[in-house]
Amino acid sequence: MLDRVTGPDLTLDHVKAAQARIAPHIHRTPVLTSAYFNALTGAELFFKCENFQKAGAFKVRGASNAVFGLSDEMAARGVATHSSGNHALSLSYAAGRRGIPCHVVMPRTAPEAKKAAVRGYGGIITECEPSTTSREAVFAEVQADTSADFVHPYNDPRVIAGQATCSMELLEQVDGLDAMIAPIGGGGMISGTCLTLSHLAPEVEIYAAEPDQADDAARSFRAGHIIAEDAPVTIADGLKVPLKENTWHFVSRFVTDVLTASEQEIIDAMKLTWERMKIVMEPSCAVPMATILRNPEVFRGKRVGVIITGGNVDLDKLPWMKS
Amino acid sequence: MLDRVTGPDLTLDHVKAAQARIAPHIHRTPVLTSAYFNALTGAELFFKCENFQKAGAFKVRGASNAVFGLSDEMAARGVATHSSGNHALSLSYAAGRRGIPCHVVMPRTAPEAKKAAVRGYGGIITECEPSTTSREAVFAEVQADTSADFVHPYNDPRVIAGQATCSMELLEQVDGLDAMIAPIGGGGMISGTCLTLSHLAPEVEIYAAEPDQADDAARSFRAGHIIAEDAPVTIADGLKVPLKENTWHFVSRFVTDVLTASEQEIIDAMKLTWERMKIVMEPSCAVPMATILRNPEVFRGKRVGVIITGGNVDLDKLPWMKS
Repeated sequence: MLDRVTGPDLTLDHVKAAQARIAPHIHRTPVLTSAYFNALTGAELFFKCENFQKAGAFKVRGASNAVFGLSDEMAARGVATHSSGNHALSLSYAAGRRGIPCHVVMPRTAPEAKKAAVRGYGGIITECEPSTTSREAVFAEVQADTSADFVHPYNDPRVIAGQATCSMELLEQVDGLDAMIAPIGGGGMISGTCLTLSHLAPEVEIYAAEPDQADDAARSFRAGHIIAEDAPVTIADGLKVPLKENTWHFVSRFVTDVLTASEQEIIDAMKLTWERMKIVMEPSCAVPMATILRNPEVFRGKRVGVIITGGNVDLDKLPWMKS
Repeated sequence: MLDRVTGPDLTLDHVKAAQARIAPHIHRTPVLTSAYFNALTGAELFFKCENFQKAGAFKVRGASNAVFGLSDEMAARGVATHSSGNHALSLSYAAGRRGIPCHVVMPRTAPEAKKAAVRGYGGIITECEPSTTSREAVFAEVQADTSADFVHPYNDPRVIAGQATCSMELLEQVDGLDAMIAPIGGGGMISGTCLTLSHLAPEVEIYAAEPDQADDAARSFRAGHIIAEDAPVTIADGLKVPLKENTWHFVSRFVTDVLTASEQEIIDAMKLTWERMKIVMEPSCAVPMATILRNPEVFRGKRVGVIITGGNVDLDKLPWMKS
């Protein structure tokens, strides 16, 4: 049973099983290139567009792997999570496809648009106060009431194996990559990337990108142990969460480096990518490009896969708009 | 010589020649689908993403076909056009790739960003006053001074044959289409679509979409002769120009219908497409979706190719922003 496995037990077979399991429920997302960004960076960049993914983000890979890996008996009790972001959307989407309940604990202060989107995919929201204490208490109640299976947004090995299918696809789509780069928050995508590449292409460098203002992964990486930040403030709101033991396993072993960028660099990279590549992506997705532009010497002359993680943004509140 | 041909003389051979000629200079753009829009419309929609095209719009197909079809002797004198939009960008791009001059007459009141973009691709701008009289006078001078070859934004058969490669690609990418729809301004894209489909797939319906407030093509279509609007006001700024004899030839013979949408419907469709499909596209590109949503009975149950024509927008002036 995959749900009895821990991070260090994960193998390529888990990734292959995930790929087969989730294929009917996700998009094989396209890879875009840009002569402009190649000229600007001196690298050859391949953008893996998970912003075009079902539910708008790569998170649907891990969520679908967890949901469709459940026994019928387990599935009947539904799944549960706490998240106000893409994982909540993705888990609701996957549960809806399987026809099982999805319980989501969200702070009552979360934007109405996000709640509406979760409900739109069939998620059942239980509100909590915007504090960790309240969230944990409310979530414990929901779990006790429903016996629903908890699917953690990133520390769950089923989720990591699901996210690993993204780099697997990218390897199939682009030959001869020298490096991959993705944003890092809790480390689910980066861990999946490490899982795939450590088996299939250990020569490919793995860079994780995060905001200067939420650089807990960079500090953890340098310190050699998890450093959790209390309440980081950054426009890249998908990247505020800390590493956990299953993602730290991969980050500590297989990541080449963790690079960071300032808020302004992130906003500039985001706007430039929208302008030149004509894609809608979240601030978090701009962090890799921001770090590439800050560290051109690291990437120059290399073929680099850049994972564009998601596209769920509020078009009425773009960071370059005057408020 | 293709440049001695008129619209009615164009054949499938011209399209095939264009496809081979421009292949090294353009993207084969991807086709995206959206479960959300399929459910919303009851149709099966295939979005041909020319917003990801070189220079940000389909116009580079026609411009490249004109530029790379020139004899060396002709090419040495360069090309010229008057346009403040995507054709100016595209012709500058294509001329730059061939290493020949591109002269663009633009109103001095055109946004600095557009002038900068044209110059960025190597275009040489001559400014005129923002009037037809001034534009024609200045353009005549530029042509006299340079002997550059005039490449009209849409009435030029070389341009029409180039635009025709878009629907050719879409036919290769998607089987069993029942209809295609594209915005109509001067009619270059629609004429190219007619050219391709009338030869290869005459059973596929062809819809042209335009703003209520610039419905000269719809009125022309119903009247049976070209009606040119004097100065239409619409957010879909690529669609203000009138039909000309070579595009009218195709529109009058092969178009199934011309559908229209209001300004608010266009803005709503644009925002909804950005939100759900995560692509940056121009207001003009939203007109087809707006007309599909206004006329669901026309498209329900059909497989419809929707041409997303371009993605060059000012991110600081989105139509849903408060100014």
